[in-house]
Amino acid sequence: MAPDDLFRPVQRQRTYEQVLSQIEEQILQGRLRAGDRLPGERQLAESLRVSRPAVREALRVLEAMGIVSAGTGSGPGSGSRVTGDGSPVLSTVLRLHVALSSFSQREVMEVRVQLERWAVREAARSLRPEQVQSLREVVARMRDQHITHSAFNELDTDFHVGMAQACGNALLGLLMQALRDAVHQEMTLTFQRLSDPRSTRDALVSQHAAILDAVEGSDGEEAARLVERHIVEFYESLESSRLEPGQPT
Amino acid sequence: MAPDDLFRPVQRQRTYEQVLSQIEEQILQGRLRAGDRLPGERQLAESLRVSRPAVREALRVLEAMGIVSAGTGSGPGSGSRVTGDGSPVLSTVLRLHVALSSFSQREVMEVRVQLERWAVREAARSLRPEQVQSLREVVARMRDQHITHSAFNELDTDFHVGMAQACGNALLGLLMQALRDAVHQEMTLTFQRLSDPRSTRDALVSQHAAILDAVEGSDGEEAARLVERHIVEFYESLESSRLEPGQPT
Repeated sequence: MAPDDLFRPVQRQRTYEQVLSQIEEQILQGRLRAGDRLPGERQLAESLRVSRPAVREALRVLEAMGIVSAGTGSGPGSGSRVTGDGSPVLSTVLRLHVALSSFSQREVMEVRVQLERWAVREAARSLRPEQVQSLREVVARMRDQHITHSAFNELDTDFHVGMAQACGNALLGLLMQALRDAVHQEMTLTFQRLSDPRSTRDALVSQHAAILDAVEGSDGEEAARLVERHIVEFYESLESSRLEPGQPT
Repeated sequence: MAPDDLFRPVQRQRTYEQVLSQIEEQILQGRLRAGDRLPGERQLAESLRVSRPAVREALRVLEAMGIVSAGTGSGPGSGSRVTGDGSPVLSTVLRLHVALSSFSQREVMEVRVQLERWAVREAARSLRPEQVQSLREVVARMRDQHITHSAFNELDTDFHVGMAQACGNALLGLLMQALRDAVHQEMTLTFQRLSDPRSTRDALVSQHAAILDAVEGSDGEEAARLVERHIVEFYESLESSRLEPGQPT
């Protein structure tokens, strides 16, 4: 019998990955919950019989995933704390993967259209007057001609994410934030290349106001139609500005 | 003047975070692309004038995000490679955040409904016969009474993710995979508590076949209606089995 029939390659799981697996398993089993504190680095290393650098690497990964927040200092109260804020990591992951062309800006735009159509339909059913008012204030601030394109883009994000969050589905709010963040830098850059960014800004603000009118009037289908056109038209204007000859790239 | 008016707290960015920022920036600027190799750990440490553990921590985080794959060995060809497979990290992040109750199974279900309604409408417009055939084969394999609930659940995932991927939006496929993975373990566990899992399986298979019929008949609206009912009903049957008294938990 050939050695290959007797032996299979040993699965090499690196030490920090084993630490990671153990902590993840505790969370998945519900034994570690949001707010709980992990043992300190040294104590974890002793319990798991691994080196402190291996523990630290695992903690870094969990921090990057928004699962734990870093502990500071030393002593019994110094361990990392289990949190549960997935927003930054989803944003970072999507942003880097857009940059690496794992998927395109168009694909991000298409997913946004679907989620935003849903968000405004829900909003038209359920938004309370004070939530509408708070979105109206975002639109009012977008009218300020003195703010930068980047600040304008952030308010734009506040409008779309605020609408999604108001619908009461935390995952929808999180995805919307991540999808917007993923294209923020590219959007701001492209904005500066538009031949008439001011008029584009005016158009976007009017469209926001119209979407909000439809939501306030409980007309979910109209709001969905408007938000789709709003997103697709803006995406297409960015695309065509990118293709215009003679523009700086 | 009080010292607090003169001084602001120093922003403490840990060393590995600075390494991370520099690599992320190179990716966002397009100077590092998928397939590129990073310098080896030692060389990176020298260029950035930081310790090797700090470099290693940053690389671990990038690996966990699916941005780089680990390098092995030493020498010039040993550096980590830039990849761009975001699927595992999105799954892990969503799974852990469901476990930490950052959002609920219901919220995951609601997002799935929206994305799947879109997926089947697109599929009804654009699926080629061989793609329909490949989904028919998944349905056929689900009919096998001898496979475990876990294997059944995996084929179920193949059906939904396969439909999404066939639509040609890579981000949609990725999100669908991550959303399914996030609830796989919980779904399989709850499945085992159903009073009559066999008849539930039969019902799910028939529903898949009906969705596929609508897609093949280019009836996107019917497919969307069917897929929504399919997802909502299954979710509700899991919910009610969880609430049934006398069931093991």
